[in-house]
Amino acid sequence: MAKIVECVPNISEGRNTEVIEAVVDQVRNTAGVTLLDYSSDTSHNRTVITFLGSPEGIEEAVVALTKKAVELIDLNKHQGEHPRMGAVDVIPFIPVKEVAVDECIEISKRVGKRIWEEAGMPVFLYEDSASAPNRVNLAKIRKGQFEGMAEKVKEEEWEPDFGGRTIHPTAGVVAVGARMPLVAFNINLNTPDLSIASKIAKIIRKSSGGLDYVKALGVMLEDRNIAQVSINMTNFNKTPLYRVLELVKAEAKRWGVAGVGTEIIGLTPMNALIDSAEYYLQIENFDRDKQVLENHIL
Amino acid sequence: MAKIVECVPNISEGRNTEVIEAVVDQVRNTAGVTLLDYSSDTSHNRTVITFLGSPEGIEEAVVALTKKAVELIDLNKHQGEHPRMGAVDVIPFIPVKEVAVDECIEISKRVGKRIWEEAGMPVFLYEDSASAPNRVNLAKIRKGQFEGMAEKVKEEEWEPDFGGRTIHPTAGVVAVGARMPLVAFNINLNTPDLSIASKIAKIIRKSSGGLDYVKALGVMLEDRNIAQVSINMTNFNKTPLYRVLELVKAEAKRWGVAGVGTEIIGLTPMNALIDSAEYYLQIENFDRDKQVLENHIL
Repeated sequence: MAKIVECVPNISEGRNTEVIEAVVDQVRNTAGVTLLDYSSDTSHNRTVITFLGSPEGIEEAVVALTKKAVELIDLNKHQGEHPRMGAVDVIPFIPVKEVAVDECIEISKRVGKRIWEEAGMPVFLYEDSASAPNRVNLAKIRKGQFEGMAEKVKEEEWEPDFGGRTIHPTAGVVAVGARMPLVAFNINLNTPDLSIASKIAKIIRKSSGGLDYVKALGVMLEDRNIAQVSINMTNFNKTPLYRVLELVKAEAKRWGVAGVGTEIIGLTPMNALIDSAEYYLQIENFDRDKQVLENHIL
Repeated sequence: MAKIVECVPNISEGRNTEVIEAVVDQVRNTAGVTLLDYSSDTSHNRTVITFLGSPEGIEEAVVALTKKAVELIDLNKHQGEHPRMGAVDVIPFIPVKEVAVDECIEISKRVGKRIWEEAGMPVFLYEDSASAPNRVNLAKIRKGQFEGMAEKVKEEEWEPDFGGRTIHPTAGVVAVGARMPLVAFNINLNTPDLSIASKIAKIIRKSSGGLDYVKALGVMLEDRNIAQVSINMTNFNKTPLYRVLELVKAEAKRWGVAGVGTEIIGLTPMNALIDSAEYYLQIENFDRDKQVLENHIL
């Protein structure tokens, strides 16, 4: 079984197709990686690129991609709704198969060092790779954005992890780090009362005392006239999907409300679902690495 | 995404390591296939070999394996508890990825023809490949075993699908066919009363009017002093695991009994579990081919 890492760089270009293709080509042209998807948002002026591969392949591909983005993207001319601080804005490494987060942290540090040395762009390590607690959260690092970053890196606590206290004049700075896969899991309620979804979201999310690794908000699905608890699961191994669903259903009963369905947005690792199958099917002593057929061919 | 087929030939040798290794080597030495497992049972005097690969690789590997088994195994000298009729006794082809059962039927017919032409062993097509209803069930074809087969193939209704009415003198005949993956799914009850497990088994299995694609028996787990409904799911797409579990639990209530846990024996395709996760997690509009990350790297 081969090691597989996922990498999802976000670049600050979502409009110029020529530039986007030239950057994505760096992934296409690297051996040992597979491009899964890239999607551009014109109002954000940003493109999210998703690829998988061996640790070595991922490292080569993302360094090549960063060099090309630094060459072609000038943040001084960039406008868009999404906050950004670099030509490549953020580079997360996500363990997929036979790789622990620790190995992704090592990859992020090697890549960070190379981005500074080979592309001249200072690097902040973030999330599980962060060198200090206030660098875990990307939003905190990015605060001030490209325009404020030249001053920010001169502050005591904001010296980049790689590179000195001068940002790249056109490409800015980038956040690089390891994190667990995110699963976007939304639970629809049979009520048009948004306040109930918001109260449940507050109960279940970590930031207000709920479950670890859960972020949640109440939102309204206008077209169906129902409220939804919109959830980001940041570590489905530690807090599995079924636990969140059962807790939401239990809390909803207080208002005579039930869960009428759920949705998973975008990609999920199969293990996030197999976890819940094991729970609900009450399977004892299941060894998914050996017993799930597909694990023999990944 | 590449096509993947699973093949699980059973050979009539479970004691002589040299012979077993020589046969298994034919799989090891074929390009485009991966040997997953082979396990020998000495009292059965039989070895089950499991491998995966491209349709072309599977075809080459299993023809090579059959030739070697025909060369090395003499059924006239074979003794074992398990019924058998050939040096290679049965060869199922199972769709795993990007392959329908229909394609596995085509493979089984090509392989059957080649086994007759290249190894001189007559072939019965069975299961989904069967040429007549009384050839679907392997046990019916194999009745009489190797010792009775020379006479049996002379009967009107038992002419082999490939080869004439003379069996191979030392290797006998073989059944070749396509079938869906089997999932062995057992449900433990919190009672030592075997008769309850047997009654529930009778309720749920197809042969006595229950669910399609379900075979079931009541058995006793002596070491835990509980009864178990032991189930073979022969098509988890058509009859999913959760449906069987929920039906068993509902029926068990009649006797005040509950399901205390389940087990899956051996391999299961991930989709058998994802099916149940989708049901219990109530996921709407889930496109597993696109949304399950691993489907992009198989």
